Amino acid sequence: MGAEQVGQRVDELERRLRALEDERDIAQLIARYGPLVDAGAATAAAQLWATDGSYTVEDNRMAGRAAVQSMVESEAHQRLIDRGSAHFLAAPVISVDADTAQAVCESLLCLRHTDGYTLLRATANHFRLARIDGRWQIVERTAHLLDGSESARSLLTRAVH
Amino acid sequence: MGAEQVGQRVDELERRLRALEDERDIAQLIARYGPLVDAGAATAAAQLWATDGSYTVEDNRMAGRAAVQSMVESEAHQRLIDRGSAHFLAAPVISVDADTAQAVCESLLCLRHTDGYTLLRATANHFRLARIDGRWQIVERTAHLLDGSESARSLLTRAVH
Amino acid sequence: MGAEQVGQRVDELERRLRALEDERDIAQLIARYGPLVDAGAATAAAQLWATDGSYTVEDNRMAGRAAVQSMVESEAHQRLIDRGSAHFLAAPVISVDADTAQAVCESLLCLRHTDGYTLLRATANHFRLARIDGRWQIVERTAHLLDGSESARSLLTRAVH
Repeated sequence: MGAEQVGQRVDELERRLRALEDERDIAQLIARYGPLVDAGAATAAAQLWATDGSYTVEDNRMAGRAAVQSMVESEAHQRLIDRGSAHFLAAPVISVDADTAQAVCESLLCLRHTDGYTLLRATANHFRLARIDGRWQIVERTAHLLDGSESARSLLTRAVH
Repeated sequence: MGAEQVGQRVDELERRLRALEDERDIAQLIARYGPLVDAGAATAAAQLWATDGSYTVEDNRMAGRAAVQSMVESEAHQRLIDRGSAHFLAAPVISVDADTAQAVCESLLCLRHTDGYTLLRATANHFRLARIDGRWQIVERTAHLLDGSESARSLLTRAVH
Repeated sequence: MGAEQVGQRVDELERRLRALEDERDIAQLIARYGPLVDAGAATAAAQLWATDGSYTVEDNRMAGRAAVQSMVESEAHQRLIDRGSAHFLAAPVISVDADTAQAVCESLLCLRHTDGYTLLRATANHFRLARIDGRWQIVERTAHLLDGSESARSLLTRAVH
C-alpha cells in the first residue's frame, strides 16, 4: 500500500469518525435536557441553546438563553419539579450537514400525583442545531403537543424522511 | 512503523468504524418509527421494512410493506393520531452479525384524553434486520403486549443476553 | 505524508474510536436493564453489575450481584412482571474517564392494570461504571423517585454538567 493510498484511507476514516462524533454530541446534548430541567439547573439548561437560540412551545416563543433560563426558574416550572416531574425525551433522529443539523424526537412530561404519576403531555420536538465555537448548540427548538394537529405532525416528519 | 503494519491498523479501524455505523444506522431506523406513524406518514413508515418484511403484533401478522402502510392508513390508526398519540420507543439493544442484525426494545403507546394522556400499551419488541441494497431494513418485527405472558418475555431476552 | 505522521493520525483515530466504542458499550449495557428485569432474567440482570457492585433505590441498598438477583426473583418483582411491567430507561448522558465512567438517565415504571397501564414511578438514576476484565460493569447505581427531593435532583446533575 503506497503512502498516498494510506493517506486517502485515513482521510476517509477521519471524515466518517467525525460524523459519528457529531451525532453522538447532538444526542448527548438532547439527552441532557430532561435531567437538567427536572433538577432545576436553569443556567446549565439554558446553555444547551445558542446565545440567540429560541424555544417555541405551541404559541409561546422563548428567545435567547435568558428566556429559557426564566422558564426553568418560573413559578409554573418550579411547581412541577417540587411535586416531581420527568421530562422524558426519546432518542432523536439526527441528520447532520457540516456545521448545522436537525433532530426530531417525541417527549413525555410525567408529573407525580397522590399515587404514581400522570402523563401531562406528549410532545413532538424539532431541533435545529449549529456547531458554534466548536460545540453543538440548539439554534431553534420547536415543540407542539401531539394533539392531532398539523403543527405537531409537520414537526415529526421534517427530519425523518 | 512499516507500511504493512499501517495497512493492518487501518483495516482494523475500518472494521470497527463500520460496526459503529451499522449500529447507528439501525438505531436511527428504529427511532424513525414513532415519529413517522404518529405523523401518519404511511409510505415512509412502510419503507422502514424490507419489501417482504413482516410486522406481527400479538396475533395480527402484517406481511409486506403494503400491509404496514395499510395499518397506518387504517381507520383505527387514524383515530389514534387524530386524537393525538405517541408511539414511544426506548433505545434498542442491538447486535449485528455481518449483514443481519437483531434489536430489542420496549415501547409505550400514549393517547391523548380529556386532561393529559393515558398509557394504552407497553410492548416488547424484537426486530430482525438485514442490509439490503446497502440499507438496513426490518425483515421481521414481532411485538407483544407486556402482559406477563411468556410470548412477551421471550422477545425481550432473544437479543440481550 | 511521512510514516511518522501517518502513525500519529492512526493513533489519534484509535483513541477517538475507542471513546465512541466505550460510550456505545455503556449505553447498550444500560439499555439491557429494562428488557432483562421485565423478562425476569435475574442472573443476566445481575451480571450487568460488577461482582461487588451496588444498587440503591431510595433507602434500600442491594450490595453484590446476588442481592440484585434476589430483587428480580423477589415476590414483589415477580408480581409486577406477572401482571406486566415496563422498566423504561431514557438514553443516558455518559461521561467516560479512561476505565471509569458515569451515566445519568431518568426511568419510568409502567404497570398493566385493567385497561391500559399506570405510571407507578418516575426515577432519577446515576450510574458509576468501571471497565473490569475488559467489560463495562455497573459499580454503583443510585436511583431516587422524582419526588421534588434534593436526593433526586442531585443525582440528575452529577454527570450532566
